[in-house]
Amino acid sequence: MSKDIQELTGQQVNRRKVVGGIGAAATLPAVAAMAGVKQHAVSARQDDLPSEVNSIISERELTPEDVTAALETFMPSGRMDDYMMFSSSGHAGMVFAIGVPSMRNYRSIAVFTPEPWQGFGFSDESKAVLEQGAINGKVMHHGDTHHPALSETDGDYDGQYLFINEKAHGRIGVVDLSDFQTKQLVKNPLLVSEHGGCFVTPNTEYVLEADQYPGVLGIGNYAPLSEFEDKYRGLCVLWKFDRERGRIVHEESFAIETPPYGHDLGDAGKGACDGYAFWNTFNTEMAYGGIKEGNPPLEIGASQHDMDLMTIVDWKKAEQVVADGKAIDNMGMKFIPMDVAVAEGLMYMVPEPKSPHGVDVTPDGNFIVVSGKLDPHVTIFSWEKIKAAIDAGGYETDQFGVPVLGYEDCLETQVELGLGPLHTQYDDKGYAYTSLFLDSAVARWTVGEAGNPDSWKLVEKLPVQYNVGHICAAGGDTKNPSGRYLVALNKWSLDRFPPVGPLLPQNLQLIDIREDKPFRALYDMPMGYGEPHYAQMIPMDRLETIEVYPQEKDRVGWDPIADDWHPHGIPAGQERIEVDGTTVTVYMTVMRSHFTPDIIEVTEGDTVTMHITNIENAIDATHGFVLGGQDISLSLEAGETETVTFVADTAGVYPFYCTEFCSALHIEMAGYFLVKPADA
Amino acid sequence: MSKDIQELTGQQVNRRKVVGGIGAAATLPAVAAMAGVKQHAVSARQDDLPSEVNSIISERELTPEDVTAALETFMPSGRMDDYMMFSSSGHAGMVFAIGVPSMRNYRSIAVFTPEPWQGFGFSDESKAVLEQGAINGKVMHHGDTHHPALSETDGDYDGQYLFINEKAHGRIGVVDLSDFQTKQLVKNPLLVSEHGGCFVTPNTEYVLEADQYPGVLGIGNYAPLSEFEDKYRGLCVLWKFDRERGRIVHEESFAIETPPYGHDLGDAGKGACDGYAFWNTFNTEMAYGGIKEGNPPLEIGASQHDMDLMTIVDWKKAEQVVADGKAIDNMGMKFIPMDVAVAEGLMYMVPEPKSPHGVDVTPDGNFIVVSGKLDPHVTIFSWEKIKAAIDAGGYETDQFGVPVLGYEDCLETQVELGLGPLHTQYDDKGYAYTSLFLDSAVARWTVGEAGNPDSWKLVEKLPVQYNVGHICAAGGDTKNPSGRYLVALNKWSLDRFPPVGPLLPQNLQLIDIREDKPFRALYDMPMGYGEPHYAQMIPMDRLETIEVYPQEKDRVGWDPIADDWHPHGIPAGQERIEVDGTTVTVYMTVMRSHFTPDIIEVTEGDTVTMHITNIENAIDATHGFVLGGQDISLSLEAGETETVTFVADTAGVYPFYCTEFCSALHIEMAGYFLVKPADA
Repeated sequence: MSKDIQELTGQQVNRRKVVGGIGAAATLPAVAAMAGVKQHAVSARQDDLPSEVNSIISERELTPEDVTAALETFMPSGRMDDYMMFSSSGHAGMVFAIGVPSMRNYRSIAVFTPEPWQGFGFSDESKAVLEQGAINGKVMHHGDTHHPALSETDGDYDGQYLFINEKAHGRIGVVDLSDFQTKQLVKNPLLVSEHGGCFVTPNTEYVLEADQYPGVLGIGNYAPLSEFEDKYRGLCVLWKFDRERGRIVHEESFAIETPPYGHDLGDAGKGACDGYAFWNTFNTEMAYGGIKEGNPPLEIGASQHDMDLMTIVDWKKAEQVVADGKAIDNMGMKFIPMDVAVAEGLMYMVPEPKSPHGVDVTPDGNFIVVSGKLDPHVTIFSWEKIKAAIDAGGYETDQFGVPVLGYEDCLETQVELGLGPLHTQYDDKGYAYTSLFLDSAVARWTVGEAGNPDSWKLVEKLPVQYNVGHICAAGGDTKNPSGRYLVALNKWSLDRFPPVGPLLPQNLQLIDIREDKPFRALYDMPMGYGEPHYAQMIPMDRLETIEVYPQEKDRVGWDPIADDWHPHGIPAGQERIEVDGTTVTVYMTVMRSHFTPDIIEVTEGDTVTMHITNIENAIDATHGFVLGGQDISLSLEAGETETVTFVADTAGVYPFYCTEFCSALHIEMAGYFLVKPADA
Repeated sequence: MSKDIQELTGQQVNRRKVVGGIGAAATLPAVAAMAGVKQHAVSARQDDLPSEVNSIISERELTPEDVTAALETFMPSGRMDDYMMFSSSGHAGMVFAIGVPSMRNYRSIAVFTPEPWQGFGFSDESKAVLEQGAINGKVMHHGDTHHPALSETDGDYDGQYLFINEKAHGRIGVVDLSDFQTKQLVKNPLLVSEHGGCFVTPNTEYVLEADQYPGVLGIGNYAPLSEFEDKYRGLCVLWKFDRERGRIVHEESFAIETPPYGHDLGDAGKGACDGYAFWNTFNTEMAYGGIKEGNPPLEIGASQHDMDLMTIVDWKKAEQVVADGKAIDNMGMKFIPMDVAVAEGLMYMVPEPKSPHGVDVTPDGNFIVVSGKLDPHVTIFSWEKIKAAIDAGGYETDQFGVPVLGYEDCLETQVELGLGPLHTQYDDKGYAYTSLFLDSAVARWTVGEAGNPDSWKLVEKLPVQYNVGHICAAGGDTKNPSGRYLVALNKWSLDRFPPVGPLLPQNLQLIDIREDKPFRALYDMPMGYGEPHYAQMIPMDRLETIEVYPQEKDRVGWDPIADDWHPHGIPAGQERIEVDGTTVTVYMTVMRSHFTPDIIEVTEGDTVTMHITNIENAIDATHGFVLGGQDISLSLEAGETETVTFVADTAGVYPFYCTEFCSALHIEMAGYFLVKPADA
C-alpha cells in the first residue's frame, strides 16, 4: 500500500495482533462421532471449542472486528442469505445475483453478451434476443450494463422482473426472475448511448431511460459538431411494460426530445411525487471536446458552469399527450418534440449544483436529493416547493425554451458531506447514505423535516476502499428500505486483494447500517469479473423461482424465451430425423445419460436444424449440448427445448456430448455427427 | 431438501441451535474512536466483544463448527489469501482465480470465449489469438475448459504459466501468470474432441493431451461408423513448450496414434516415473452408440468390459523417435503412427478396472492410482512393477498390436473406497484423497508401502454436497503437496443455495485436511458461472505479477499478447489521424480523463484502424474503450496499446467513452466518432 492511499483514506492498515483470545466454554449440543468411517458434522466436544477458537484467532491474527464480521457474514452450508443483490457487471454485459450477507455470487445472467455456459446467444431462440438489440442491423456481442432495476408493485420490489440498461448502445434488457432468463432487449432508434436508466415507476408502468451523450436524433443521421446546439439533442424514453406478458411494448412506449445536455442518472418519483421522473444533466455548457482542434477536453469544457439543470418530466401528462395523438413518429418510435413537451407543460428544469451525478427520491417522495460531484454538498429539493413553482407559472426558460424553475424556490436545504458526492440511498431509520468518490467514503446523514434546516445533518463518514461509485442499500430505491445492509461498489481495489496482474478486481464492501451497531464494513468482496456499476437488493423471500420448466402428461418441451410450449418440443419416443432434400431436421431428446438419436449423418452442405428437448423433470438435471466445429453450446434445463440451425459445411466426424456432469456415466453421454463428403 | 438427498448423503441438515455462547473477554488492543466524523476501524471496546459475539452466534444460530469455519475462512480487508486456486469454468470457456481459504473469485481470465470486460476477442490482437483456435477455418466463440495445469519446475508449480485444455474442440490455451493474459491457443489438426489433458511434465518440457472420442484422423476426413475399428483412432499429443518464449511450439510438438478407445484423464510421470505419461481409456468395447439403429446407448455399450486399459507412453523415447526422423507429417503435425510407436517400444497398456476416470501419480512417482468409476476400489499400480514388466518383454497385445502388460504383474494393491471413485489428490502426510461421485463423498486413505498391502487403507469419508467430480489439493499434482486445504468441486448443489431458477450453481467446498484437525468442510462456494471442472492450487507467494506494463522514458505502448513493444504505441504528443484515401489510421492516447484525439470524423465506407495507448503508469489505472455500433469493447491496462480495425459502414454520430470508472470526471471521458455520409 502506498503512502498516498493511506493518506487519502485515513485507514489504519496494519493488522492488529490479538494478544489473548476468547475464553470460556460455550454450552453446545454434542454430536456423537459415528462409528467406523467418520461422517460429516462431527462436532468438536463442548470443551474443545474455546481453545480452538482462541488458537484460530491468535494464529490468524484476527481483530475483534474481524471476529464479529466473520460471524456476521459466514453462511453455514444450506443456509440461505437474507437478501439477493442484483449487480450489473459493467461492460461484461451481464448481471450477477449475489447473496447478502455472504457476498457470494449465485448466478451470472447473460443479458447483452453471449455466454456459452448458459447457452445464451448460441441457440436460435437466444440469438433472436440478441438480434432485438442490433444497431444498424449489426448484432452486438457485448454491452455496458449500468443500472439494474427490480420491478415494483406499489413502490416496493416485487421480485418478478429485473431490467438493466446498457450505456454503449442505449438498450434495456428484461430478465424474468422466475427463471433468471433474459427474455427481451429493446433499443430506441434515436440515439446510440444511454446512461440515465433504467428506473421503474412505482407499479412498473414504465421503464425509464435517457441518453448520456447527445447526438443527432435518429441513428444514422449526421451533422457536424459545429452544429451541436442546433442539430444535436438529448432524449428521455419511457418504455411501457406489460406485466401480464412480461415484455416491454415498443408500440406503447415513447420518447421525449430534450436539449443537448448530457443526461446522467435519473429516478422515478414515488409517494408524493408519483407520476414524475427526474434526470440530472451535466454539460449544460454543451461542450463536445476537440483537444486537437484547440478546445479544452470535455472534462474541462463540461465543468465550467457552477450550476447545471435537473430535468423533471410529468410522465402521466406525457402519457396523456401520446394518447391524445400529439406524439409524432420518429424512426418507428412515438416521439414528443421538445416544443410540444414545453407547450403541454410536461417538462421543466431546475438548476442544480455543478456536474451532478446521482438523483435519488426519498422513500416518501417528499424530497429529491442530487449530488454535484464537483460540489461538496448534497442538494435537497422539496417536491412541495417544486410543485408550487410549477403551478405558479411565469417561468424563465433556457435557450431551448424549456421552463427553468427558480433554484431557491425549489431548494429545501444543502448538507455538506465531502468531496465527490455521487449517489444516495436510504434506510428505515431516517438516514440517507451518500457515496463520496474523492473521499473514498460513505456519508450517513439525516433526512430532515421540511422547513427545519437543522434537522438535516451529517452524522458520520465511513472510509471505503477505494473510489466508491454507487452504493446499494436493501430496498434502497423503494418506499420501504430495509435498513440492514449497504454495499459500497468501489471502483478501485489497489492493495486489497492478491496480485492478479494489471487488471484488478473491484471491491464490493458490505456495510452494516443498523442503528445500534457500529457503522462499519463487514466484508470485502472482490468482483473479478466486470465493472459492477449499480445494484439493487431485495429480501430473498420475495423471489419465487421455478425449478423445472412446465411439463404435462405427454407434453414436454418449454421455450423459456417465448414463455410457452416450444413448437418443436417432443416427449420420449418421438425422436426422429427428417430429411427433405438438403434440409435435415433432428428431433432429439436428452436424459441421463444419452442423446436420442445419438448418431446423425448428413451430407456436406446440408442445412441442419436440431430441436433438442431435455425430458428430465428433476431439479438440477441440466444437460449441455456441444457439437465440435459448429460454434454451438447449449444449456438445456429440465423440461426445456432449444433449437440450433447451421450448415454442415465441412465433411468429417464431429462428436457431440453433454457438457454438464450429469451422472456417473456423463462422459459416455455423447454421439457422433457425421458429415459425408458431397462427392462420396 | 428432499428425503432422497438426505438418505443419499447421510448428512445431518437440521441446523443445530446454539443454546449458550462464548463467554469471557478477549484481551484486545483498544483503538480510540476518532473525534468528530467517525473513521474506519473504530474498535469495539475490550469488554464489548464477548457479548456481541454471543449475541451474533445466538441470533444467527451458528453451531460450533460454523464459528470455527467462519474464523478459519474470513479474510480481513487487505489480507491476502494463502493460496490461489485456478479453476476451469467448464463450457464458460475461461479460468477463475480464486483465493483460498476465503473462496473469493479475484479474476476471470478469458481463454476461449470472448469477454468484453477484458476486451478479449474484441481487439485485433486478441481476435488473432482466438483465430489460432479456429476449426475448419471457423473461429469458435466458446470452449469447454476442463483441466488447468500450472507450469512446473522440478515437479513443483512455479507460478509462471497456466495451461488449460478445451474438450469441445481439442485446444489448449496458454495463460501468462505475470499478467493473467491468454497469449496463445493451439489446436491439433487431427481430432476434434479432447479430454485427456492438459498435464505438464515435471519441467514443463511438454503439455500433454489426448482425445476423448475417437475419430477419423485429420479433421475433415470421413468414414462411416461401420468402419469404426478400422478407420477411427485415438491420439495422444505432446505439445512442446518453450519457456523462454512462453509459447507452445507447434513444429516441435508431436502426436501419437492410439487405438480407438476413448481416453479419459491423464497424468505425467514424476520422480521415479519421470519421462512417462499415463492415460486412462474407457470404451475398449469400441461402442459408438446408435440407439435408433438398435444398439445400446453408449453409456451401456461402453460399460460391458470388466477391465479397460491404461495407456503408458515413454515420452522421452517418443521425443527421440521424432528427433530421429521417424515421425511423419500428418496435416502439418509431426505424427508417430501406432505401428512405429509399438515397434519403437514407446507405448504400452495395462488392464485396469471398469471405465476408469482419473489417473494420478503419487508425489514420489512410485505408484499410479486409477479409479474405475464403476468399481468401488482405487487400483494402485507399482511403477517398479510396470517398469519390470516392460523390461521383461514377451507381451500380449490388443487387436491393434499394442503390448498389454499383465494386470497382476503391475498391480500393487487395491483399496475399497465406495461408489463412483473418480480422482485422487495427495497431501504431505502420506494421505491420498479420492472423490466418490455416487457416494457424494471424499475418501481419505493411506498411501502405503510397496509389498505391504495392510499399509494401504481407507481412513475416513467426508460427505460433500453433492456429486463430487474433481478434487483439488494445494500442490496436489506436484512432488510436494501442501497438505492444508482440499476443494471438492461438486457438480450438483440442489438445496445448498438460494433459488436462482432452473440453472443451479455448482458447489466448491473447501475442506480442512490438516491431520490434527477434524476432516471437515469449512465453506461452500457457489460457482454461479460455468461448470468448474478441475482446479490447481498454488501458494500465493509463488505468483509474481506485474502491475503496469513496461514503460521507458519516451517509450510507452506494450502489446501483452506479443510480449513486446507494440509497433503502434505512442507517448503523449504523438497523437494523430492519418488519412490515405479511404483508409483512416488513428493514433490515440488515453489518460485520466480524456482521449486524444477526442473527435474523429471519417466518411461512410472508410476502413478505420485505431491504435490506442493507455499512457498511465499507476496501478489500477485501467481505461476501457467502447465505440457504439461497432461491436468494440477494449480494456486498456496502464501502459498497454491495442488495435481495432473496422469499416465505418453506416453514417451517423457515435459516441465513444471510457468504460472503467477512472476518476471523478470519468463520465466526461468521451469523444465523438462521426461518420459523414458518402454523398454529403
